[in-house]
Amino acid sequence: MPQEFSQIDRRHPRNDALPKALGLERFAADHYPEGLLWAGARRAGIPHARIRTVDVSAAAALPGVVRVLTRADVAGSNLQGIVHKDQPVLAGDKVRHCGDAVALVLAVDRETLARALSLVRLDLEPLPGVFDPAQALKKGAPLVHEGRRGGNVLVRASIRTGRGAAVLRECPVVVRGTFSTPMQAHAFIETENGTARLLPDGTLEMTVSTQAPFRDRFEIAQALGLDPMRIRVVAPYLGGGFGGKDGATVQCLLALAALHAGGRPVKMWWEREESMLAGYKRHAARLTYALGADRDGTLRALSCRIVMDSGAYAHLGGEVMALGMESAGGPYRIPHADIRGLCVYTNNPVAGAFRGFGAAQTAFAAERMMDRLAEKLGMDPLELRLRNALRRGDRNAAGVTMTASTGMAACLEALRAHPAYAAREAWKRAAPPHARRGAGVAAACIGVGYGRGLPDAATARIELTETGTFRIFNAVPDMGQGNASAFALIAAEALGQSPASFELVQPDTACCLPSGSSSAGRTTYTYGNALVRACGALRDRLLVRGAMALLADDTADLTLAPGAVRHVKSGRAVPLALLARMMILEDRTATAEFVMPVTPDATGGKGFVIGFPHLLFAYAAVLALSEVDELTGAVRVRRFVSATDGGRVLNPQGFEQQVAGALIQGMGWALSEDVLTREGRILNPDLSTYLVPTAADAPEVDCLAVDSVEETGPFGMKGIGEVNLNAALPSIGAAVQDACGARLDAAPLTPEKVLGARPRRARRTP
Amino acid sequence: MPQEFSQIDRRHPRNDALPKALGLERFAADHYPEGLLWAGARRAGIPHARIRTVDVSAAAALPGVVRVLTRADVAGSNLQGIVHKDQPVLAGDKVRHCGDAVALVLAVDRETLARALSLVRLDLEPLPGVFDPAQALKKGAPLVHEGRRGGNVLVRASIRTGRGAAVLRECPVVVRGTFSTPMQAHAFIETENGTARLLPDGTLEMTVSTQAPFRDRFEIAQALGLDPMRIRVVAPYLGGGFGGKDGATVQCLLALAALHAGGRPVKMWWEREESMLAGYKRHAARLTYALGADRDGTLRALSCRIVMDSGAYAHLGGEVMALGMESAGGPYRIPHADIRGLCVYTNNPVAGAFRGFGAAQTAFAAERMMDRLAEKLGMDPLELRLRNALRRGDRNAAGVTMTASTGMAACLEALRAHPAYAAREAWKRAAPPHARRGAGVAAACIGVGYGRGLPDAATARIELTETGTFRIFNAVPDMGQGNASAFALIAAEALGQSPASFELVQPDTACCLPSGSSSAGRTTYTYGNALVRACGALRDRLLVRGAMALLADDTADLTLAPGAVRHVKSGRAVPLALLARMMILEDRTATAEFVMPVTPDATGGKGFVIGFPHLLFAYAAVLALSEVDELTGAVRVRRFVSATDGGRVLNPQGFEQQVAGALIQGMGWALSEDVLTREGRILNPDLSTYLVPTAADAPEVDCLAVDSVEETGPFGMKGIGEVNLNAALPSIGAAVQDACGARLDAAPLTPEKVLGARPRRARRTP
Repeated sequence: MPQEFSQIDRRHPRNDALPKALGLERFAADHYPEGLLWAGARRAGIPHARIRTVDVSAAAALPGVVRVLTRADVAGSNLQGIVHKDQPVLAGDKVRHCGDAVALVLAVDRETLARALSLVRLDLEPLPGVFDPAQALKKGAPLVHEGRRGGNVLVRASIRTGRGAAVLRECPVVVRGTFSTPMQAHAFIETENGTARLLPDGTLEMTVSTQAPFRDRFEIAQALGLDPMRIRVVAPYLGGGFGGKDGATVQCLLALAALHAGGRPVKMWWEREESMLAGYKRHAARLTYALGADRDGTLRALSCRIVMDSGAYAHLGGEVMALGMESAGGPYRIPHADIRGLCVYTNNPVAGAFRGFGAAQTAFAAERMMDRLAEKLGMDPLELRLRNALRRGDRNAAGVTMTASTGMAACLEALRAHPAYAAREAWKRAAPPHARRGAGVAAACIGVGYGRGLPDAATARIELTETGTFRIFNAVPDMGQGNASAFALIAAEALGQSPASFELVQPDTACCLPSGSSSAGRTTYTYGNALVRACGALRDRLLVRGAMALLADDTADLTLAPGAVRHVKSGRAVPLALLARMMILEDRTATAEFVMPVTPDATGGKGFVIGFPHLLFAYAAVLALSEVDELTGAVRVRRFVSATDGGRVLNPQGFEQQVAGALIQGMGWALSEDVLTREGRILNPDLSTYLVPTAADAPEVDCLAVDSVEETGPFGMKGIGEVNLNAALPSIGAAVQDACGARLDAAPLTPEKVLGARPRRARRTP
Repeated sequence: MPQEFSQIDRRHPRNDALPKALGLERFAADHYPEGLLWAGARRAGIPHARIRTVDVSAAAALPGVVRVLTRADVAGSNLQGIVHKDQPVLAGDKVRHCGDAVALVLAVDRETLARALSLVRLDLEPLPGVFDPAQALKKGAPLVHEGRRGGNVLVRASIRTGRGAAVLRECPVVVRGTFSTPMQAHAFIETENGTARLLPDGTLEMTVSTQAPFRDRFEIAQALGLDPMRIRVVAPYLGGGFGGKDGATVQCLLALAALHAGGRPVKMWWEREESMLAGYKRHAARLTYALGADRDGTLRALSCRIVMDSGAYAHLGGEVMALGMESAGGPYRIPHADIRGLCVYTNNPVAGAFRGFGAAQTAFAAERMMDRLAEKLGMDPLELRLRNALRRGDRNAAGVTMTASTGMAACLEALRAHPAYAAREAWKRAAPPHARRGAGVAAACIGVGYGRGLPDAATARIELTETGTFRIFNAVPDMGQGNASAFALIAAEALGQSPASFELVQPDTACCLPSGSSSAGRTTYTYGNALVRACGALRDRLLVRGAMALLADDTADLTLAPGAVRHVKSGRAVPLALLARMMILEDRTATAEFVMPVTPDATGGKGFVIGFPHLLFAYAAVLALSEVDELTGAVRVRRFVSATDGGRVLNPQGFEQQVAGALIQGMGWALSEDVLTREGRILNPDLSTYLVPTAADAPEVDCLAVDSVEETGPFGMKGIGEVNLNAALPSIGAAVQDACGARLDAAPLTPEKVLGARPRRARRTP
């Protein structure tokens, strides 16, 4: 690995910045193929019911309606789901949540579609439902999936390390708490959508806003009884994903529609309310913790019980819970632990992947427990964290050994050294009238990559074009996190070229190679590593071809210079444009794969399938400076200072975008975002009632990167997309408590809750 | 490298054996595209002349003649030649040898073609010619290429090591000799031929019997002013090559014909006499040697002068001479040497590449000098060789250090240990009436690969087919040496598959990747190394795809078993046929290149461009048991015993074919093959007068392989195709002298020469 970089660690604008700013970049939603039909799903609208009949006659008779499809029109398994396949494409016998699709309409325009959807007559026999895990776990509770072993329990998992929770009895100091975190919507700008068309040769061609185009083919194929290799999925830049486009959203419905469209292109695009109703959510969680320590603050034992609401279907429930359990003890050494997890079916909207992926929920509990412990011990919260911070070689509460780069302590030290940290008391004292200010610190970690149970692999493809520039076949969707631009940078560094000489092909299963999903903090790491290898192979090839052209017998005498192969001693060079003209496509193309190494840890975990444990972790320490309005209880974060260990920073601009983006999305979850339901029905299904932070709400964010190099990563990087989100809620929670004494264990920290939770003394002042 | 092989070092029939035996394999000559035109060249017929006019009117007027082309129809440089481009496609101003083409006729059938060729009227002004190098080097001699710096000298090169030839004066024993070796014809079964067609899209598609399809594109493009990438060359199995199809033979003429054929396919196929006339030959050489040693036989100094006849054009004259000079001192340690070489233009047929490549010529001189020295010292010739044999780390007379595997001594020891060696005296005594028997030993070496000055590179491509078998895109023609079959074996070993699961695509510039020529003992070594790498890349890819299918997170737990990827511990497996169905072509394809390492030696050589020095050498020690007919002087080799160091033997069957083939081709050159010319005209232009050994002439051949592993080679091999040829002539020469006392320094050792050279005493007995 070179010590001096020419491109890495320098600020570069993203390749998609200008085209997006100019409105030239076409998202999936911007595709309007000529002669398209609109497809839409009729949703059940009630949370639990037996389907008696679905009468489509009136809808089908409406002029402009091309087809109305039901369960009977699905030839395959009709089931979708990334790990557990239990979610019907079109519900046949039963409805399990309000968003279940029961009919699919194809119409010539959107107005006709809406009309026809309303004309589909559903005869549903309502069933009693279960709307929270506690209710679902009760004996005799209605079953979401009848006849299933385990009843409403999707996954029951446990980890026991050391002597387990029994050690709590030996601890001189024990703190306890029960926490809850809300369902969160991804609320991406571009809602779920795509276009599809059945070509005359039988290929199903789709352009979808998706995080996992390669997996989609198999999802669709199995659900609809097709050959996965006859399905082509193209994934342009996404207008946001955050996990909500990992797994089938429109895919199977859209493919089904295209199969019945007589060769015409079909477009499906969920409206915002449909997206809220039928899209995936962050798992609401309830966390019961007991944490024991010695008097000097050394952590000794943890007991915790995590209950997550999976909603009506499995999606990634088990995997999200696994990641939460893995980080349940936070980024700390805890030798003894009992960690139990339950992921439970209910008739609520379906939960799935979301940035932070289970670890966001447990981070709230773990960090607030640390604050409670610090309070009880009279210790500084940051010092308590630093004393227990995981260092390389340490094991966390879940028994996972940190064998790779472990910058937790470095993050805390960087935070402590930041001027804003020392100045926090002065800042608090300068609060404006009717406001109280507080500072809160949180630390967080998250596993990078898929974890054990599934190979975390990518295959990169890069080509020297006929004109001597380069083309990268990115196979992992860029949902806004900037991985595609990072790939251009990585390739530029690896090949010694200017980033401007790289063209990016966005994921397309017809020409890019399987590289997994855009998720799990693994996107840039895994594909980036594969790309470094592919660049190495291409470089070797170009040196050989250059050697032929220059009659140099030893490629060691040659170097790949910008735009040319150069003979170092003589200075003679052959332009890449000339070499390219002499090479057939196969000769100008290099492919290489990378599989993320796995941890050798065999932990005591039970009940896990995929995603536990991890080898790599990202770390962050965050200071939140918050202001509480004494009159309204409204919390305003004024500043975040974050110190992150995500390995080497490839592009400081991209790093800052990811850090700030995660903190602000976490802030939304901390303060206002909460998918409110009553008996499975969403009460705030649009962005006027579901409150996402706007640019006006965004605080100042200081993004520090600690000096860290992850040896296994491309040029030393590891994932940075998620970890800061996990620190937002606990740091804000601590800041709010610091500001006004309100100790809130149930997120979000709404004004009502803040007002209600202020200690009496605080309410009286000033 | 595995210690245990499953395929390597076992006897396998060649992949092409059965198809060839059944007549199913189609050589280039077997292609008769529908609607073809025949193309043929009118040859000059006189060795040196100024061209006044070429009158094609009568020929063009003949019914059935489509076009008659001359120099004026050539748009490019009109020049061909691998290193020095000095040979016209169609001679315009001047004729330099009898085989020069002056007109090109396209006709509807072969009879019309022959008639039309005879109707081309040439008005040539004869010029005085030069017909041997001595004559050509004289002051005022006619110039083959007027206006050329250096006159008739194509290359003058010299190597001086140690204190040079001056050391001879210090040597207590010095032997001297002057040797000559004849011009040899390749005499392949399939003479030079090909078909070509200009496609509507402008691509020139050719199927040619060629050793260098990738280079051919550039030869043709430059000579005819075309884009090399619009030329596609396909090279089926060759019916023999031996160097004679390295470089343009029919290629440029055929391409020119196709450009003027109105899109019809064109076929050109040289008759045997045309092949003798216009094809390349082994350089006739004259070698003047002085070799000095200590009384104990330790070699001390060498002086030699090598003069080679290049004929009318350069072809590879300089490179052939470089290889001869590199091995001028034989496979021995000689600290002081002066080696001088001259390659000279004459008006003889053009000399070029031929198995043995210059080193065959010098081996005759060097080995016979060793015999002379042994005689003078009263030493056993084998022991003298063994005493001086190069070992790893030693430098040869040309100053080349043997840094790689060096099995010369092992070969000599293996030969000495062979029963036939000990029994040679008994065998000689058992001679039949009127016959005398003799035994001769020779050692030989030859550089493997291109040597310095040119990258010796190959790029392999292998594909998992849609059905789960494998396809190797061989890019280096198989001219009969069996490299294609060796590639299947190498890939089978590297991928752990049965050789039967490999399909071989023969060289095609449209789908195979540039891999150099089939020559220089580098074919299997260089492409084989690239293939091992490509197989490794494909294996890695298949393990990743298998891991996805088997949900295995660590590819280290997987193995590539025959037809499947297997999870070792659980025994679960996924068939390759299933994986293949899930992979697009790019995903199922691996390519990798290899560049032969080069020696770091910077020797004192002057005048070399390409091909000196080498890193790798092959070695052989040969015992020839020969019988001389006392009445006719005819020499009959009864048995060869050869011990070869060609690195690890991949397939003993292929090894034996190469060793025996080289010895018998060398035997032909030793005993009967001699292209006889008078003033540049060939006197024996067909196989009734140019005498090639037949199966009936073939002696018994014992092929021993010494235990040798070349670390840089694919599974430890290095080239074996040439070295034994170099030992044939000197070992037979020694055996003849041993039999009847005839010391012949001018090959071939014809009956007339043997009868004439017998010492008086020998003539009298018995």
